[in-house]
Amino acid sequence: MEVGKSIVRVDAFDKVTGRTKYTDDLCDASAYVAKILHSTIAHGRVLSIDTTEAEKIEGVVKVVTCFDLGEYKNYFPTAGHPWSTDPGHQDVADRLLLTDEVKFYGDDIAAVVAENEVAANQAIRALKVEYEEYPVVTDVLEAIKDGAPQIHKNYPNNILKHTSISKGNYAEAIKEEGLTVVDRWYETPTVQHCHIENFICYAYAEGKRVTVVASTQIPHIGRRVVGQALGIPWGDVRIVKPYIGGGFGNKQDILYEPLCAFLSLKVGGHLVKLDCSREETFVANRVRHGIKFHIISHLRKDGTYAARKIEIFSNQGGYASHGHSIAAKGLGCFPQLYPCDNIEGDAYTVFTNRPVAGAMRGYGIPQAMFAVESHTEDVAKIMGIPSIEFRLKNLMPVGFKDGFSKNVNYYDTFRQCIEKAKAYMDYDNKLKEYSNQTGRIRKGVGMAVFWYNTAVWPISLESSSSRLVLNQDGSVSLQLGETEIGQGADTAFSQMAAEAIGIRVEDVHVVSCQDTDVTPFGTGAYASRQTYVGGFSIAKTAGLLKKKILDYAYILTNMPPEITDIKNGMIVRTTDNMELISLKDLATEALYSTSDSRHITAEATAQIKSNAYSFGCCFAEVEVDIDMCKAKLVKIINVHDCGKLINPALAKAQVEGGMSMGIGYALSEIQLVDEKTGKVLNDNFLDYKLSTAMDHPHLETAFVENPEPTSPFGTKSLGEPPVCPVAPAIRNAVMQATGVGVNEIPLRPAKLFEYFDKAGLLK
Amino acid sequence: MEVGKSIVRVDAFDKVTGRTKYTDDLCDASAYVAKILHSTIAHGRVLSIDTTEAEKIEGVVKVVTCFDLGEYKNYFPTAGHPWSTDPGHQDVADRLLLTDEVKFYGDDIAAVVAENEVAANQAIRALKVEYEEYPVVTDVLEAIKDGAPQIHKNYPNNILKHTSISKGNYAEAIKEEGLTVVDRWYETPTVQHCHIENFICYAYAEGKRVTVVASTQIPHIGRRVVGQALGIPWGDVRIVKPYIGGGFGNKQDILYEPLCAFLSLKVGGHLVKLDCSREETFVANRVRHGIKFHIISHLRKDGTYAARKIEIFSNQGGYASHGHSIAAKGLGCFPQLYPCDNIEGDAYTVFTNRPVAGAMRGYGIPQAMFAVESHTEDVAKIMGIPSIEFRLKNLMPVGFKDGFSKNVNYYDTFRQCIEKAKAYMDYDNKLKEYSNQTGRIRKGVGMAVFWYNTAVWPISLESSSSRLVLNQDGSVSLQLGETEIGQGADTAFSQMAAEAIGIRVEDVHVVSCQDTDVTPFGTGAYASRQTYVGGFSIAKTAGLLKKKILDYAYILTNMPPEITDIKNGMIVRTTDNMELISLKDLATEALYSTSDSRHITAEATAQIKSNAYSFGCCFAEVEVDIDMCKAKLVKIINVHDCGKLINPALAKAQVEGGMSMGIGYALSEIQLVDEKTGKVLNDNFLDYKLSTAMDHPHLETAFVENPEPTSPFGTKSLGEPPVCPVAPAIRNAVMQATGVGVNEIPLRPAKLFEYFDKAGLLK
Repeated sequence: MEVGKSIVRVDAFDKVTGRTKYTDDLCDASAYVAKILHSTIAHGRVLSIDTTEAEKIEGVVKVVTCFDLGEYKNYFPTAGHPWSTDPGHQDVADRLLLTDEVKFYGDDIAAVVAENEVAANQAIRALKVEYEEYPVVTDVLEAIKDGAPQIHKNYPNNILKHTSISKGNYAEAIKEEGLTVVDRWYETPTVQHCHIENFICYAYAEGKRVTVVASTQIPHIGRRVVGQALGIPWGDVRIVKPYIGGGFGNKQDILYEPLCAFLSLKVGGHLVKLDCSREETFVANRVRHGIKFHIISHLRKDGTYAARKIEIFSNQGGYASHGHSIAAKGLGCFPQLYPCDNIEGDAYTVFTNRPVAGAMRGYGIPQAMFAVESHTEDVAKIMGIPSIEFRLKNLMPVGFKDGFSKNVNYYDTFRQCIEKAKAYMDYDNKLKEYSNQTGRIRKGVGMAVFWYNTAVWPISLESSSSRLVLNQDGSVSLQLGETEIGQGADTAFSQMAAEAIGIRVEDVHVVSCQDTDVTPFGTGAYASRQTYVGGFSIAKTAGLLKKKILDYAYILTNMPPEITDIKNGMIVRTTDNMELISLKDLATEALYSTSDSRHITAEATAQIKSNAYSFGCCFAEVEVDIDMCKAKLVKIINVHDCGKLINPALAKAQVEGGMSMGIGYALSEIQLVDEKTGKVLNDNFLDYKLSTAMDHPHLETAFVENPEPTSPFGTKSLGEPPVCPVAPAIRNAVMQATGVGVNEIPLRPAKLFEYFDKAGLLK
Repeated sequence: MEVGKSIVRVDAFDKVTGRTKYTDDLCDASAYVAKILHSTIAHGRVLSIDTTEAEKIEGVVKVVTCFDLGEYKNYFPTAGHPWSTDPGHQDVADRLLLTDEVKFYGDDIAAVVAENEVAANQAIRALKVEYEEYPVVTDVLEAIKDGAPQIHKNYPNNILKHTSISKGNYAEAIKEEGLTVVDRWYETPTVQHCHIENFICYAYAEGKRVTVVASTQIPHIGRRVVGQALGIPWGDVRIVKPYIGGGFGNKQDILYEPLCAFLSLKVGGHLVKLDCSREETFVANRVRHGIKFHIISHLRKDGTYAARKIEIFSNQGGYASHGHSIAAKGLGCFPQLYPCDNIEGDAYTVFTNRPVAGAMRGYGIPQAMFAVESHTEDVAKIMGIPSIEFRLKNLMPVGFKDGFSKNVNYYDTFRQCIEKAKAYMDYDNKLKEYSNQTGRIRKGVGMAVFWYNTAVWPISLESSSSRLVLNQDGSVSLQLGETEIGQGADTAFSQMAAEAIGIRVEDVHVVSCQDTDVTPFGTGAYASRQTYVGGFSIAKTAGLLKKKILDYAYILTNMPPEITDIKNGMIVRTTDNMELISLKDLATEALYSTSDSRHITAEATAQIKSNAYSFGCCFAEVEVDIDMCKAKLVKIINVHDCGKLINPALAKAQVEGGMSMGIGYALSEIQLVDEKTGKVLNDNFLDYKLSTAMDHPHLETAFVENPEPTSPFGTKSLGEPPVCPVAPAIRNAVMQATGVGVNEIPLRPAKLFEYFDKAGLLK
């Protein structure tokens, strides 16, 4: 069994010895350097750009402004979604390579290509821009108002999209006698992904074709978007993805691949590198949507919901990017996690003059879970019911089936996860112990559950192709469209391939660097889809490869495929487990046989028309210094049911990473924007308070392994879930400690001061 | 029809604009530089190498001598032949990465890895070597004698291999009354390939695997040989082949890929570059076998052969490399070109203390044709029969079938080729005109035919795999194991793929850079095999791809595959030629369909169990300055029947290149070796007289297109043939001009002086 083992990552040795090559390591020193001129207003129009001085600077090769696009003026979408031939399912095409219509402070209005970075930076500074300025709006509830500045044409009230859900009859249901109404607002901040490796790419032309080597999660989608942006056939674009230093969704958007390709074409196909600084990454890449939630619950005395309502206002920033999908996903989970007969919900995604929001780990669910699980805690408290008891009473029951996704809750998984976490936390005792505290330092415990689903079907296409090649020595090379971005996907894929073929994982050579010219199609790293979807693809392709191997074994051993199998790299007769020939010898003979030479390979596409729930919980213990308005996390555990673990050690690592991100989300991280100018105030790691190991207690992880029946390897999503329940668990722990429910994260001192002061704690 | 058109090479734009990346362009500047210490004796043993001073030089990272191989002391073969699981068919494994047993002047005895080239060169010079010297033998007829210095153990008389052919009864046949006996020796020189790009490679490790990026004709074979040399699983080796600046067979040997990989492993997997200088290329790569031929013909008065005999003595140099194959190929053609009932033949391949001989364009046939076609001319002259008439009487007849290869001469192709050439040359008139000359400047015409066959079946495996991918825009990516090395193979492959699929050649994107991790298996560029063998593979794979496309078209159009086809990128209904849907729209829909998503690709192996003759002739006119002993070529034409032309312009270019190489072979090129020391005397382009455009008259080419029935595209070999008939045609022209048959090439002044003087022309 190669699946289920905590093998060392296949890329571990090179990564710890510094040998792994990332995009910048691969770019030749002869590359020209591209720099972007970002707007210094948040809303307006570029009237002119004087390039005279910039062009005089030695080493400057080309200056291109928003007025120089010519044939390349094509509006294109940037979201990392599979394409759809149905225009109604296509992403909004609202970006230009460079624009004169500024939508946020930092928009791309010109670019310089120079022989070196110094000249490029000098030239950027030498560009003189004249703007016509428009009024700026940065708050989502202001932007939606009548009379607010209009950011995009054809989007009245700046609403990119509005969707609703409805079940039963909310208006009637709330008339029921004796209902307790809990009506609250919750707010989550804009944060940035903060992957270690900033976005970087380089581009060059070969013949009429353009190649972009990019730090991306989505090489095959990138091919299509670059084609759309440049207005050239998509087959004329080649995207190469080397090792990636993290993405977390920021690189699930097409960022500057099209611009870099365009700049290369503008200098005759010469190699051009575009390397985002950290400051640019914060401002001109993507951020997590800041969302305001309004939840109204109507409860019966027995602690059941009579009716529930939710309103979601998602701050999109200047361009559509992933658009409404994030808010819609948050809305979608609302009626599932705590089913209720009467539900109403509305989600609005609203343009503002802020940095563009896109995909980020969790894709709306960390936001929704903060709102829903804070609200759940508030409701339980108001109803006087222990919150875990309240949850278990109202959570989706075993056997629940969602009508849209067809997802089924097959196991009593919430209870199982909660029991594990409770035991680790000694929750019941602590809950009692911390229930009536006074004094400056107070402790509290809190928890939250989360809802997540795996992959994007049935909203979008789920399709994954892979190719397996039997090498001369019986080892196997594996190519697939799914993408290693630092999370360990290659290791999981190798284990699944080894398992499915019947060989040792050491004998699987995964081709990590992807190249759209040769890599089978897959949509890439997002939606916690890869282990699930890639698993189908690997299982299917491995089956085809195995069939070809056993067919050849028939030639060499006379034993028909019906009674042979591959085990531990040997062809065995299944009737008596006799080892007939090694796969190594078979592989060599198959390739070099002068009577019957075959290069044994297999390739297949798996289209996935299922999805799977992925559940779990977080329990947190905090220590709050009331006077200092500081909340300190002292103990935390995440428990996940992501089905069967492919690699427990990697799963643990992935959960730890998600918890770390959740801790920052809960306690310290927020992108601050000057409301008047739209300028980001903390575009660096000094001012942006990223959560680090220094801010963490020990991160405890545990798993409940209920095998997912729809998955060939029994697995389901784990990449994004860990971040989802952390912030509400910490917020609820602070509430237990202090009695104050803080409805806005992060729970930084400034915010706690506001709430504690209001609650009279600081007298 | 995309086949048969003179389209511009697919790589033309990048090559003429200098954008094409060759190995050195791709190597990162951080690479360590490796340099090799070559022996300064031709035969002996290294007693010691003092590395002390070398290691002190700043920038030197590692010095490795022949005594430091340790676990890497594995004897390996270097020939670019497919492997065989039959030990009797495996190449001789007589090379070590570095050796203390010196076999030729320039053998590899130590290597230095340094941070830069200067330090590496300094360190090489600082190494102090003690040798034990053995006697040196460089002449093939001396080396074969009893008592000659023995170069390899277990090879008595230095004979690497001896093979014989026999037909009828030679000993009896020569007793026939009234036979004219012509008994002559002929000798061809050692020459070097002189590709523009010297051999270069660089290596680095990833995990336990090692990658070598190399200027090679045979990436998949290289993978195996590096595995053998390092004693590691072949799947742990990855070979990448970028664009190549020519090979001509030198890069059909594994040269320094194993050493470079070894040196990288010795420095912890760091990037190491090994770049051969021109001097090293001449001495320590491979050369063409110098061969001495002894031919005895017994002729009846009617100009028919009663019996024929040939002896071949091939100078192998210090190591086996391609071994006896070259001499054996020359021997093999002897009974086929001019069939005779009584034939005897012997070929000996003999080790000497000279640079190692390996594959070179023509693989023994340029040598054999010089001997055979000079001899044919000599015989015709002696018999008093016009030589063309003599040839046509004795050449293999239409319908001739070789018992071993099963090749059939389907057409009266020799006559057709000769007629074309005669017409261009005004041969009959000139023959008359030049028949009785006196004076210092004399003119002459001469001609020669040649025999060639295509690919290596049935001597070795012929197997070729390819993969086709339908891109999102209806274009197709093509990968195959066959190798572009400058000859234009990618263009021919693209045309064949376009033709077989039914799309425009512009919509085929051939993946030129090969990578053994992802490129389908193929044995590479040699034996003029690729258009023939690759054609089968492309035809087979294209058929599979087309089937998948038409199956999908059935879903979209309801028209079953039985009545649909692809024409000009459109799916058409064959019954009425109605265009149903474009391949572009089909491709996009197939990939993104949420009901049935498929990444349409196809991959197949074609094993070829056939071969094909490829014939033609060369006619030359010369002007000889008797007093100056100078022969000047004034007019030349090659006529080839290589079946159907895939790309006439490229075919023409390939013939011109071969003619140029043949002209140098005839008139100026020879590797001079000091007989006593074994040292090469002209290891550079000042002293080695490479034929250039300055030495050429206009090169005329013509074709006879008899479609080859065994080939899916009607084509057969053209890569090597053009060089084969040139030297004897020129030699025969000189004989017509002067009456002197010079039996040793090149016909340089020193040699002509010797012959002219002997013939009394210089009195």
